[in-house]
Amino acid sequence: MIRIGIFGATGYTGLELLKLLGRHPAGRIAWLTSENSAGQQFGDIFPVPPALGGHTLIPSAEADCTSVDVVFCCLPHVAAQTHVAAARKVGARAIDLSADFRLRDAATYEKWYGHPHRHADLLAEAVYGLAEVNREAMRKARLIAAPGCYPTSVQLGLIPLLEADLIDTQTLIANAASGVSGAGKQAKVDNLYAEVNDSFKAYGVGGHRHLPEIEQGLNQVAKQPVQLTFVPHLVPMTRGIHSTLYARLKPGVTGADLQALFEQRYAGEPFVDVMPKGSTPQTRSVRGANVCRLAVHQPQGRDTVVVLAVIDNLVKGASGQALQAMNIMFGLAETTGLGAPALLP
Amino acid sequence: MIRIGIFGATGYTGLELLKLLGRHPAGRIAWLTSENSAGQQFGDIFPVPPALGGHTLIPSAEADCTSVDVVFCCLPHVAAQTHVAAARKVGARAIDLSADFRLRDAATYEKWYGHPHRHADLLAEAVYGLAEVNREAMRKARLIAAPGCYPTSVQLGLIPLLEADLIDTQTLIANAASGVSGAGKQAKVDNLYAEVNDSFKAYGVGGHRHLPEIEQGLNQVAKQPVQLTFVPHLVPMTRGIHSTLYARLKPGVTGADLQALFEQRYAGEPFVDVMPKGSTPQTRSVRGANVCRLAVHQPQGRDTVVVLAVIDNLVKGASGQALQAMNIMFGLAETTGLGAPALLP
Amino acid sequence: MIRIGIFGATGYTGLELLKLLGRHPAGRIAWLTSENSAGQQFGDIFPVPPALGGHTLIPSAEADCTSVDVVFCCLPHVAAQTHVAAARKVGARAIDLSADFRLRDAATYEKWYGHPHRHADLLAEAVYGLAEVNREAMRKARLIAAPGCYPTSVQLGLIPLLEADLIDTQTLIANAASGVSGAGKQAKVDNLYAEVNDSFKAYGVGGHRHLPEIEQGLNQVAKQPVQLTFVPHLVPMTRGIHSTLYARLKPGVTGADLQALFEQRYAGEPFVDVMPKGSTPQTRSVRGANVCRLAVHQPQGRDTVVVLAVIDNLVKGASGQALQAMNIMFGLAETTGLGAPALLP
Amino acid sequence: MIRIGIFGATGYTGLELLKLLGRHPAGRIAWLTSENSAGQQFGDIFPVPPALGGHTLIPSAEADCTSVDVVFCCLPHVAAQTHVAAARKVGARAIDLSADFRLRDAATYEKWYGHPHRHADLLAEAVYGLAEVNREAMRKARLIAAPGCYPTSVQLGLIPLLEADLIDTQTLIANAASGVSGAGKQAKVDNLYAEVNDSFKAYGVGGHRHLPEIEQGLNQVAKQPVQLTFVPHLVPMTRGIHSTLYARLKPGVTGADLQALFEQRYAGEPFVDVMPKGSTPQTRSVRGANVCRLAVHQPQGRDTVVVLAVIDNLVKGASGQALQAMNIMFGLAETTGLGAPALLP
Repeated sequence: MIRIGIFGATGYTGLELLKLLGRHPAGRIAWLTSENSAGQQFGDIFPVPPALGGHTLIPSAEADCTSVDVVFCCLPHVAAQTHVAAARKVGARAIDLSADFRLRDAATYEKWYGHPHRHADLLAEAVYGLAEVNREAMRKARLIAAPGCYPTSVQLGLIPLLEADLIDTQTLIANAASGVSGAGKQAKVDNLYAEVNDSFKAYGVGGHRHLPEIEQGLNQVAKQPVQLTFVPHLVPMTRGIHSTLYARLKPGVTGADLQALFEQRYAGEPFVDVMPKGSTPQTRSVRGANVCRLAVHQPQGRDTVVVLAVIDNLVKGASGQALQAMNIMFGLAETTGLGAPALLP
Repeated sequence: MIRIGIFGATGYTGLELLKLLGRHPAGRIAWLTSENSAGQQFGDIFPVPPALGGHTLIPSAEADCTSVDVVFCCLPHVAAQTHVAAARKVGARAIDLSADFRLRDAATYEKWYGHPHRHADLLAEAVYGLAEVNREAMRKARLIAAPGCYPTSVQLGLIPLLEADLIDTQTLIANAASGVSGAGKQAKVDNLYAEVNDSFKAYGVGGHRHLPEIEQGLNQVAKQPVQLTFVPHLVPMTRGIHSTLYARLKPGVTGADLQALFEQRYAGEPFVDVMPKGSTPQTRSVRGANVCRLAVHQPQGRDTVVVLAVIDNLVKGASGQALQAMNIMFGLAETTGLGAPALLP
Repeated sequence: MIRIGIFGATGYTGLELLKLLGRHPAGRIAWLTSENSAGQQFGDIFPVPPALGGHTLIPSAEADCTSVDVVFCCLPHVAAQTHVAAARKVGARAIDLSADFRLRDAATYEKWYGHPHRHADLLAEAVYGLAEVNREAMRKARLIAAPGCYPTSVQLGLIPLLEADLIDTQTLIANAASGVSGAGKQAKVDNLYAEVNDSFKAYGVGGHRHLPEIEQGLNQVAKQPVQLTFVPHLVPMTRGIHSTLYARLKPGVTGADLQALFEQRYAGEPFVDVMPKGSTPQTRSVRGANVCRLAVHQPQGRDTVVVLAVIDNLVKGASGQALQAMNIMFGLAETTGLGAPALLP
Repeated sequence: MIRIGIFGATGYTGLELLKLLGRHPAGRIAWLTSENSAGQQFGDIFPVPPALGGHTLIPSAEADCTSVDVVFCCLPHVAAQTHVAAARKVGARAIDLSADFRLRDAATYEKWYGHPHRHADLLAEAVYGLAEVNREAMRKARLIAAPGCYPTSVQLGLIPLLEADLIDTQTLIANAASGVSGAGKQAKVDNLYAEVNDSFKAYGVGGHRHLPEIEQGLNQVAKQPVQLTFVPHLVPMTRGIHSTLYARLKPGVTGADLQALFEQRYAGEPFVDVMPKGSTPQTRSVRGANVCRLAVHQPQGRDTVVVLAVIDNLVKGASGQALQAMNIMFGLAETTGLGAPALLP
């Protein structure tokens, strides 16, 4: 049994993680924190089976990290740092779903997040939890930074092309679209139903915080600094991320079998699904599932490659991927507890 | 008074046109056709004011083109050709909202639409009705092909950059997203509510019929053949198109004031709204309005320009633009009857 | 020209009123207030034509009620009282869209709103602005309380039956459903897109503040105290109210021609549309329009009558009805500026 | 192992059943039929795990009912009769999700469905599969008619009140609202996204086919003929049914503890969740879950009782309830394979 504590259990990623753990044979919840709902039972707030619902939420100040094997931190960045550091201090392993331990460089963190990192000493220990790239390092990790939602879909879509050195690394484009749950459960006018429904817009064009995370990850596989233009959009839907990725084939690259390249790259990956040639994956096809579905196109046979990548931002883009990280970290079968099919229609 | 006949009045573009005409001081409806609803009054089918609702729908076979000054054809391609040709034969002017007269080259038409053009002789006469480029030709036109919805937004977004010769013409990207009304009012499983709701997907990546139309229009302003990668997406919303356009600045182009460029290009245009620097237009901000809203960005100061363009596919992308064409064709003030503000929230 | 001041111009009802006034030939906006956006132009915030957009928002403290003929108050209750009273004090007429002057009895107000009415002296002067019942009183009114959204649809649906004394007054049921814009533009977790989308629920079953307003109005036409069970629901849509009303025919009432009753009652009403027998009106058929559409049914010929009533909560349920009130108050044609058709699809 | 054949596997209820069976330890799929997709693998059409996706669809003519223990029939009514009869003929048990075997009386069937029942001889054998009422009969059944979606929610909401003889049986009202998946996956203009989105309407007010089914079920528990007014509505959402039920307490019934009544009636029921006093259940709280959530209210302490009932129309209202029936029929624990929590947000 793996004893688990969760900081921030009542946000969207906390709830999703709890539900996934409800089917996990080896995870056992020790405690759940919530500042706003402390004292209530989890089942008073959310419709979950009694086994999960019976846990009484505690304030994070009462959370005892010595009583657990691993801590999941489902808090926003900044708040996350403190609790991850506290957990690590007493030897508990930590999986952080915030952005606090994703960037390796404290200066980059400060530039994009607007304040100094308070636990920069832990950055060296942190492993970026994209199993499809860093699986070996994750096995031995004590602190894993679960990748962001956009970064997961963008990286999985571009990795095969970059590893095979087929594309120009300076003209990458990620046109991404997310459901509104990606913004979390905070009361903001911009995320009201009446403000979002039946409309579509870009945002963060000038610079979204996921850009340095994506470029860092792509730099690693490309073994050189890449340049990516990243434009996120808001879709009137609850869950799901769809990334449409554009890359220029290098001069002279002709006749590459991109479909085969993708299929081979992800042949052994349990949570990456390369779709048949010509496919256009829908976000609902991964709703609730820990899967990234990919399709690769070369429109008109011209030299621009288009990759389509869909994930559920709360599952493969957050809590599912975090649980996948736990499975790896504790030597369990990687798919444990993560087999739920998509909910559609 | 301009006497008007409308072929296909009960589809989405027909309905929108009727409602716009309801506020047009100079247009007078002579007849409306519908094969499926012939014999019914328009007001039996749609909630419109009595002045519009009282028209009895007739089958197209009974439409008398000699009794009208102009015919609007709101039928699908192929069906449109026949009626446009019939109208032209008796001297009525025609504004076609289908794709039948947009491509100048009959062979290109046949390639993309899968059958020969039956009235290719009329192609030379047809003027592509994008007023922002072809206004003068439209004044004297007898047959205007109203631009497609995607092509309107993509062209308006790229024209300033191409005219100023600032961008590479071979690496253009149009990542576009449309509401479901763009697919028309035909019973198809793929467009059912339960298939579209709460999901997002690309489609037509291998080749969408709007691609040759867009490239033809861009070739005209670039004065050279351009290459565009066009990926349309389906958004769970009813109306609206959002195009996110990517272009590479030519080597050596630095310090261009793109904001000023766009503002100057569209300074006199009544239906193009260049938004303040840093803006991200929402589709709902043009819902029901004959406006294209544009914003231009240069993320991170790098050499990829991003243009955001939104229109209502049924208004500036179809019926509003068609009415704008009529105003021009008949020497009226271009804005006549087209001043309705957007409906939001 | 009618000089108009608007308190609270940047909420949903304020915006809707502004857009309606944009087409009103006799209204002239003198000032618009907003505490949060004071100093900005209205057009910086919303996509409206330049004629409307050019107004600079002022804080309410700077609003000069002596410079206007009428004040519209689009503020929440409590806040509304103060400004309405200030306007009346200097002789400006006032049309209040909040609940502050709808209930005639200050004690009832205090019971349902939880605090004493601060300007109870004005209650006697206030006329309830449901033109279909109180038109004559509205002509001479100095202060009009625009009816609530739910109350408008429920009253219009039940009035013909109560006036004709056909139904039991003690077993009335109003099962109503509203779009989310009815909750206004306040940042609340419950109204976030991700909380509302793809779900449906009742709320306020124990007692909604519109209940006493509805019963007061129905008592007036029934000339006796009625009992209504009112259950509102939240629909994942932006605009629209749909009320499904149930009433028991009095014993012995058989063979009543309910369809004729409704048609006759509303024969002269410009903004009530009694639909053909068997109809089921959709909320989108009144989206953006100042219309209530009604249909009356008697399922299985049994003695329960079902009335369906739809309005746009922001138009006939708020700003449109308020403008209708102004037209009446100032002796204009009641339909002035209110002829816009519904926006659909 | 229970060998299972499914007629009509590619509709919404077929897909849902397959996914539920994917987690069922005792069910083993023998064959799946589809006329339109015969020859394809299930996984080519839907995103399901490989274990499910590998089944090749066959035309129903090739389905061998002798090779299975039970047949699920997920076809529309009429089509269902034939296949259920064929299965029964060779001794396979059958669970029918259509309306064909729900009504006990062939004449009533003919009246509401417009054609004679072709296998009326099987009606006597058919058990109505509402476990909360008919569990014992279901244990021995060879043919179970799974209840309709609306009828499930309405019956579960009214049963406690009728069994306790607290309410007038002649003035029952069921105001119900359904997501669009309830209409199935057939191409109809009325169910297009652009026709349904952002709107709300009633339908079938004159007489919905679920009315006789509901009244039949309520008559059974009330032990007398009841009269119900049933008005269904269409909600712009994919899944979910919300029934708002109104009943008049019998004269003299005062002080009944309705909350306790409901809690006691459903104390042992695994799939009925009586919520705490004052609750208003959301449909999303049962999305994907085989649960009916109920709340009982007595607004203003008056004599109208309001019951709120929510289910997922595809789970407790169709495939989940059908699988529950199979568990009962084959002596398995009733909850086997049915423990999935709701997917929200």
